[in-house]
Amino acid sequence: MSLPAEFHEIAERVNNWGRWGADDETGTLNLITDAVVREAAATVRSGLRVPLALPLGPDGVQSGLVPGRINPVHTMVQINQELFGPGTVATSDDMAVLSLQTATHWDALSHVSHSGRLYNGRPADTITPHEGARFGGIDKVAHVVSRGVLLDVARAHNTDRLPGGHAVTPEDLEAAEELAGVRVRAGDIVLVRTGQMRVLLAGDRNAYAHPSPGLSVRTPEWFRARDVAAVANDTLTFEIFPPEIDDLWLGVHALDLVEMGMLQGQNWNLEELSTVCAQERRYAFLLSATPEPFTGATGAPVAPVAVL
Amino acid sequence: MSLPAEFHEIAERVNNWGRWGADDETGTLNLITDAVVREAAATVRSGLRVPLALPLGPDGVQSGLVPGRINPVHTMVQINQELFGPGTVATSDDMAVLSLQTATHWDALSHVSHSGRLYNGRPADTITPHEGARFGGIDKVAHVVSRGVLLDVARAHNTDRLPGGHAVTPEDLEAAEELAGVRVRAGDIVLVRTGQMRVLLAGDRNAYAHPSPGLSVRTPEWFRARDVAAVANDTLTFEIFPPEIDDLWLGVHALDLVEMGMLQGQNWNLEELSTVCAQERRYAFLLSATPEPFTGATGAPVAPVAVL
Amino acid sequence: MSLPAEFHEIAERVNNWGRWGADDETGTLNLITDAVVREAAATVRSGLRVPLALPLGPDGVQSGLVPGRINPVHTMVQINQELFGPGTVATSDDMAVLSLQTATHWDALSHVSHSGRLYNGRPADTITPHEGARFGGIDKVAHVVSRGVLLDVARAHNTDRLPGGHAVTPEDLEAAEELAGVRVRAGDIVLVRTGQMRVLLAGDRNAYAHPSPGLSVRTPEWFRARDVAAVANDTLTFEIFPPEIDDLWLGVHALDLVEMGMLQGQNWNLEELSTVCAQERRYAFLLSATPEPFTGATGAPVAPVAVL
Amino acid sequence: MSLPAEFHEIAERVNNWGRWGADDETGTLNLITDAVVREAAATVRSGLRVPLALPLGPDGVQSGLVPGRINPVHTMVQINQELFGPGTVATSDDMAVLSLQTATHWDALSHVSHSGRLYNGRPADTITPHEGARFGGIDKVAHVVSRGVLLDVARAHNTDRLPGGHAVTPEDLEAAEELAGVRVRAGDIVLVRTGQMRVLLAGDRNAYAHPSPGLSVRTPEWFRARDVAAVANDTLTFEIFPPEIDDLWLGVHALDLVEMGMLQGQNWNLEELSTVCAQERRYAFLLSATPEPFTGATGAPVAPVAVL
Repeated sequence: MSLPAEFHEIAERVNNWGRWGADDETGTLNLITDAVVREAAATVRSGLRVPLALPLGPDGVQSGLVPGRINPVHTMVQINQELFGPGTVATSDDMAVLSLQTATHWDALSHVSHSGRLYNGRPADTITPHEGARFGGIDKVAHVVSRGVLLDVARAHNTDRLPGGHAVTPEDLEAAEELAGVRVRAGDIVLVRTGQMRVLLAGDRNAYAHPSPGLSVRTPEWFRARDVAAVANDTLTFEIFPPEIDDLWLGVHALDLVEMGMLQGQNWNLEELSTVCAQERRYAFLLSATPEPFTGATGAPVAPVAVL
Repeated sequence: MSLPAEFHEIAERVNNWGRWGADDETGTLNLITDAVVREAAATVRSGLRVPLALPLGPDGVQSGLVPGRINPVHTMVQINQELFGPGTVATSDDMAVLSLQTATHWDALSHVSHSGRLYNGRPADTITPHEGARFGGIDKVAHVVSRGVLLDVARAHNTDRLPGGHAVTPEDLEAAEELAGVRVRAGDIVLVRTGQMRVLLAGDRNAYAHPSPGLSVRTPEWFRARDVAAVANDTLTFEIFPPEIDDLWLGVHALDLVEMGMLQGQNWNLEELSTVCAQERRYAFLLSATPEPFTGATGAPVAPVAVL
Repeated sequence: MSLPAEFHEIAERVNNWGRWGADDETGTLNLITDAVVREAAATVRSGLRVPLALPLGPDGVQSGLVPGRINPVHTMVQINQELFGPGTVATSDDMAVLSLQTATHWDALSHVSHSGRLYNGRPADTITPHEGARFGGIDKVAHVVSRGVLLDVARAHNTDRLPGGHAVTPEDLEAAEELAGVRVRAGDIVLVRTGQMRVLLAGDRNAYAHPSPGLSVRTPEWFRARDVAAVANDTLTFEIFPPEIDDLWLGVHALDLVEMGMLQGQNWNLEELSTVCAQERRYAFLLSATPEPFTGATGAPVAPVAVL
Repeated sequence: MSLPAEFHEIAERVNNWGRWGADDETGTLNLITDAVVREAAATVRSGLRVPLALPLGPDGVQSGLVPGRINPVHTMVQINQELFGPGTVATSDDMAVLSLQTATHWDALSHVSHSGRLYNGRPADTITPHEGARFGGIDKVAHVVSRGVLLDVARAHNTDRLPGGHAVTPEDLEAAEELAGVRVRAGDIVLVRTGQMRVLLAGDRNAYAHPSPGLSVRTPEWFRARDVAAVANDTLTFEIFPPEIDDLWLGVHALDLVEMGMLQGQNWNLEELSTVCAQERRYAFLLSATPEPFTGATGAPVAPVAVL
């Protein structure tokens, strides 16, 4: 089995290898310039902050569908321990075990490979159990702060939630752009709302996982045309799942991460943000979403906040 | 053994129990109003972003000094796994085990108790192995975005690093305020630089741990007078260690977390920020520092970013 | 709510507190004398070895029913790593995260308390997050080798598996003893087969968990009369679940572990052993079942082997 | 760099590939026949049991020398939790994180490869992060019970502990055999005592790790000649470390595991056994040492017991 011709055609059009130098490990994040950040800060008007992360707890996203991914396990290693003797100040300490892609997270560029290659043409076997991802790890991402734009595709469709079989197309993105009254531009981080998160919040992990609406394999070209810095959405799989093209599993992942070098975010809770943006009639904001810098990791949890 | 009289006198002066209602779990974070955030966003001029987190890797802060705390262990659960058959798109997944206070982190209000009480007078035994901290857990902190102010005490002392025995006093904070040309005000997050981080960055975990400069037991009153929202610094112990008063171990922790209800941050890398602030001659900035929302946790990793 | 009168009456009859001294932490394991072990070794005739442990893997017993218990997560930290340079000998290393009661295990005496007390009257609060069980931890069990006797209750009932609502009574044990042609005596380790394990091996974790046949609250007196050293069976809950007496949850646990100080084993796979014993017409054997000595643990995995 | 000629010469002489069929995954454990086990049981005379495992706790063997190996971390996930309401029976549950080779353990045959090959000629890349060792994993070892023979090389040298630079040779093994008054034969498990464990028990992890006495690269031929089933000793590195031949790191590992297919055990505490054997003047016993069956693992903890 190999990837279909259609994949390779799109890949050629969106490819960014070498664009920021042969040694670049952060891809489209290079598009977030100081000027972009200045303008992002200037979008703040009300000072409202909207958190976008799911809780990191035992009742998380993972249902066993993705092999090896577990919900976070949290345990106490000390509880009110009077380390310096009875009657002294007492401390509590915790430990956690978690899959780094378990809940609200960024995929690092190294999270996906195809045909033996990572972003920028690096060999996939630079990932080892011993050191993790030596190239394109999440630790290479120093900070993620930019203008965020909510493309509320569900709302543009006058629905709470797109149906499971809905592939979000460039036309959908433009309809949401029109609703937002904002044109997506270079360096923006785009948050695409499908409403699928409502299924998880209602307590059904399995139905949340799939069938899931998600990005169409046609969207990478749109993101490339606009020179978006990163894209996140409110689904487990990011792209429509099962896929729209037979035998092209995870095609969007491969185009975004490997070909374009564009960070992808998954399991972002965009419900409150959707309400606030609709109320304030503003869909652009300062977005702060720096991942935890796990050394050599191919993804990491993030606690994103939109500041309006 | 019990806490010395001096502790109880200060405690009475800084106590915030009931100030934001009997059920409040976030303490001085209530001081970060929308107006404070609007003003914080308005401090952004250059668009420069400075990350403040240490890497989450095996060569971390922990040396075995704090019982039960381990450096993060990162492993790969999948490497370039072609989940949908040979020749398909391949994914890599990771897992991590970590103490939640292992590296750059916020202490939750529940991290410390004394005399059987947590912040707002809640019983310390509301923390259980089963559920963690039911009151004052880090998951109650939805977002931490405010104006940050760097109080560069080391630079105000014309040194790279304060000596191990140096207790940072209110006078030190005011000298640094003068250097900064900024007056700390309600809702600010104060970052206190001692330079101790240079010891860790030079590779000596043990010397970093102690003896360590750190905040004096006299500082909580200063933070209370200014109504600071949170304080972080560049040491393992936050407060001077060993302590300045015999038999008062972790006194600053107890005053800040239990009495005032003020978040504390530790192991923040303020070295690059110190350089940038000095170059730009600006010590106030937008600070984004939302902790990972581990359910029931008494602390959590954070990847803070200063936006100048 | 408190424990019913019936519980306290049985408790009084089976109680072993003080029997082996006020400081004893191993209870009925004291009954395994050198003489018992010599006789156990003398039961070996064919040299056949039958393993009784379930695999420690992701497809394990845990279904989410018991809060906080996870199936083992196994990851590779090194794969064929040539630590001393290219072309040298390569090594692979693994890490695992597991609940200590996840699969085939022994409960330590400290696993259960009631009315604030552990075995031998020790206070339950001697278990702390910091040190685990300071009294009655599994690390106090140096070795578990004795004569094992299979009481194949399912076979004695001419069935593959007792129904979910079947409480195994002393009469059932004696019927199985008759089938075995062996009289259970002091120091023996009794393995009680219900056949419930067949449900798990057929792939249904939830049906395995409950409703489950298991030991009746009447059995502790029988075990006490015979002075059994330990008892294990092939269910998740050990005792019948839901319980036979309203409002007496985990009553057998409390009687066996707290009152008698008798180790309990769960999730033991007795299917192959049942077949071999029936074929050889011998139900007594040398049993080697020493738990992994986790410091301060209230239970531990064990890989038991019957030698016939 | 490649392996020296001397290595390949010995490899040819000890190689067991194909000896038990092309699909065999357990190597010399095949030599433990029912007859061997019957004779092992017949060695039991006093009924004394001697445990050989180190505690699995935070003060373990690991010092940071072996990358990625950590001492076990134990935490409580429930403490005296009254799951069915106040006043009901309470339970405590634990979790552990551990490197599988952290303390007293068996190396699985898949633990080591050289020249891209595992035991029986299988490709080394059958080990994946996703599934672990598909060939030669510790889960393929159903049971390890046989005759054990203590070869107390330290005692034969009239010393408590061999010096760090001492390579244990076939001549040393034969001297210890003479002291033992036992001839090692097919199917035996040999325990080689160097006394190095005394360094660890005295509290010095670093000195325990290296320089360490250990098996010479000349011993595999001796073990092959005697058709030993498995070998364990009381050191971290098993073989002398640093190695006796320049540029032959882990040569004994490669010969034992890859070429012969013989299990190796490390960090076994043979101190009490040494005393007991000397007192009883018996060095052969029943040894029960079945590893925990972690699926796909390249090693696993074991709690061995010698029964005399």
